[in-house]
Amino acid sequence: MHIETDPGAQWVQQAATDARAASRVLSRLPEAARNRWLAAAAAALRARAGDILTANAADLAEAGGNAAFRDRLTLTPARVEAMARGLEDICVLPDPLGRVLAAWTRPNGLAISRVSTAIGVIGMIYESRPNVGADAAGLCVKSGNAVILRGGSESRHSARAIHAALAAALRDTGLPEAAVQIAPGPDRFYVAAMLRAAGMIDLIIPRGGRSLIERVQGEARVPVLAHAAGLCHTYVHAAADPAMARAILANAKMRRTGVCGATETLLIDAAIALGLLPVLVADLAALGCAFRGDARACAVVPTLVPAEPADFDTEWLDAVLSVAVVDGVAGALAHIARHGSGHTDAIVTEDGDAARAFLDGVDSAVALWNASTQFCDGGEFGFGAEIGIATGRLHARGPVGLEQLTTYRYVVTGNGQTRP
Amino acid sequence: MHIETDPGAQWVQQAATDARAASRVLSRLPEAARNRWLAAAAAALRARAGDILTANAADLAEAGGNAAFRDRLTLTPARVEAMARGLEDICVLPDPLGRVLAAWTRPNGLAISRVSTAIGVIGMIYESRPNVGADAAGLCVKSGNAVILRGGSESRHSARAIHAALAAALRDTGLPEAAVQIAPGPDRFYVAAMLRAAGMIDLIIPRGGRSLIERVQGEARVPVLAHAAGLCHTYVHAAADPAMARAILANAKMRRTGVCGATETLLIDAAIALGLLPVLVADLAALGCAFRGDARACAVVPTLVPAEPADFDTEWLDAVLSVAVVDGVAGALAHIARHGSGHTDAIVTEDGDAARAFLDGVDSAVALWNASTQFCDGGEFGFGAEIGIATGRLHARGPVGLEQLTTYRYVVTGNGQTRP
Repeated sequence: MHIETDPGAQWVQQAATDARAASRVLSRLPEAARNRWLAAAAAALRARAGDILTANAADLAEAGGNAAFRDRLTLTPARVEAMARGLEDICVLPDPLGRVLAAWTRPNGLAISRVSTAIGVIGMIYESRPNVGADAAGLCVKSGNAVILRGGSESRHSARAIHAALAAALRDTGLPEAAVQIAPGPDRFYVAAMLRAAGMIDLIIPRGGRSLIERVQGEARVPVLAHAAGLCHTYVHAAADPAMARAILANAKMRRTGVCGATETLLIDAAIALGLLPVLVADLAALGCAFRGDARACAVVPTLVPAEPADFDTEWLDAVLSVAVVDGVAGALAHIARHGSGHTDAIVTEDGDAARAFLDGVDSAVALWNASTQFCDGGEFGFGAEIGIATGRLHARGPVGLEQLTTYRYVVTGNGQTRP
Repeated sequence: MHIETDPGAQWVQQAATDARAASRVLSRLPEAARNRWLAAAAAALRARAGDILTANAADLAEAGGNAAFRDRLTLTPARVEAMARGLEDICVLPDPLGRVLAAWTRPNGLAISRVSTAIGVIGMIYESRPNVGADAAGLCVKSGNAVILRGGSESRHSARAIHAALAAALRDTGLPEAAVQIAPGPDRFYVAAMLRAAGMIDLIIPRGGRSLIERVQGEARVPVLAHAAGLCHTYVHAAADPAMARAILANAKMRRTGVCGATETLLIDAAIALGLLPVLVADLAALGCAFRGDARACAVVPTLVPAEPADFDTEWLDAVLSVAVVDGVAGALAHIARHGSGHTDAIVTEDGDAARAFLDGVDSAVALWNASTQFCDGGEFGFGAEIGIATGRLHARGPVGLEQLTTYRYVVTGNGQTRP
């Protein structure tokens, strides 16, 4: 018998075994019982807001980092209230479990149905935003999944205080305590152990910066649902309505530059670049945007900074826009196939045939026609809440909400059938 | 720049790049074009039956192995004809691409639809049965996926002759030749390279014995759809109809003992064991089955061989049945949770409440009530054809047919919406 001596592996074996048992209980509870926990957890977050803010102050006291980093780490009474309200919002979402996704009867009388069911044990690996733990736990418990949380070391006091509130609500509502667990400490071997826990943890969802996601995707032996990059394109077709193109591009690039659905590259048809590109550039420049243009774009707007080849593979997450002039839908699709990240891409056009060619031809999780790429979001899709965005090709693509946290199984009813 | 010198990695990079491009073409072809290839490939298999049988004779001349192994490896004119007909059967199945899985409109007017789409590049790793290559290629091309085949070294001549027919049909119908590729040789580094090709190959489907599946699952950095084991249970509940229980168990265990849906363990309620277990044992013994009983089963039928603890974790794939006496649905569920493989489990009962408790409580890909576990099969489910059975928890569970070889993406149509 193999005796495990790695403390991370020892911990994850026990945590995942307990989580598996908890998930079996959770996923068979009526929706009302799972909702009772969501309500109790919201109440517990409010009741323990003082503890949570004190813990957060300890994290902030120890933290270095720039202003943006410290802002992500910071909790305020309003942010604790938003976490609580987030759990209450999940409460009112429809039950994702037990949905009959398909049902049919075979000629031999066997009645087959495909029914949604919990995935099982989910590992949530996140960084500095402490609220991610509460949001993830809410979505996981509602969907019958046990979750093992592992926040960043910089937010460890906050994460533990939030977890304490969630755990108190598990006890108060009689749900298994192992339904929501947290790694015992900030050591990195806990992450490594989670990533290696194939067969014990069913799915890892990382939330954080690109280096975290890439490390998780590179090391994980457990399936991962994530997006490493959101290199989104807005393609302004020759038949675009100029006013619509200006409004969509300004929103897609500048509404928030740091979100994964923000447009990073503008593609514009050669046929209209001379007239429209200077206008689009002026609009965005007025909002504080900088530009990297390919040779054709720079020929139209000589003030653009010439792009390096790598710029079209760069997710700026900032007020910077790569600009390329292309020849029609085929040119746009070729550029996106080469440089895109399979996340979200949009076309602006009044030409239905061009739009359909683009929507059919682009190979991304989300393809939009005449709308801002920043709509790639679980809330905007009507999912109520999301745990992330997936750019892989299996299980789920795009916003990951309650439905994507389920899987399915078959229930087959007969009356004595045997196979010939 | 990193120069790849591993010949397996060099090959897979080129093969997967070509396959990605082919998949983009394939998945956008009308169904009729994909069906034309299926028909042409069937015709090519028939036209080249002589070459294929000659190649198979070369494999057989080099092969050792026992009779069962040689039988799996052997092709006959009838088996080549069955391969061709298998492709024609796939032809008439409904197009799995472009199905609108869900569609809704948001309050802001955005129309969102979730549409089925090809996965992309599939790696098929199989062993001695040469027909698996043709079956897999048929299902993959119909579902818009490019496939890279890697058969066992023992069937390499046959696999190449079959691939030559499929490739000729690609040329004849103008489809990209990289849609169906085969590893250039029998060396194991081709398998290793495929398993490491994360981001290049989207999904690996292994077909073969348990050691192959476990190696693939253990080494793969690419998602895998497979079943390592089919440790299926038939649970005869206290309220079972005895005649039905006898018929179902005999079929579930003995129809074919070597298939993954064959029952390996009989669970029988203590309340009826005294009367029914001797009858069930006599039925199966008459069919040539041997038994391994737990202490309670041996107390009822003293002629049973006492089970070792590991027997209940053993997939016999043979005329051997493990037998345990349990106490009610809870006892059966506890046994299955501990020993099952998440594949297929059945209850036999006339009691609807007991059946529902079992169907809700069992955590397997397929749960059956009053039917044989051997119904876990894509054909029996009405899928027309299957590429395998999956016991993982993500993307697809149970029989993997055309629908499970697709994923989805979102198509969003607006009229100028920007996100507030």
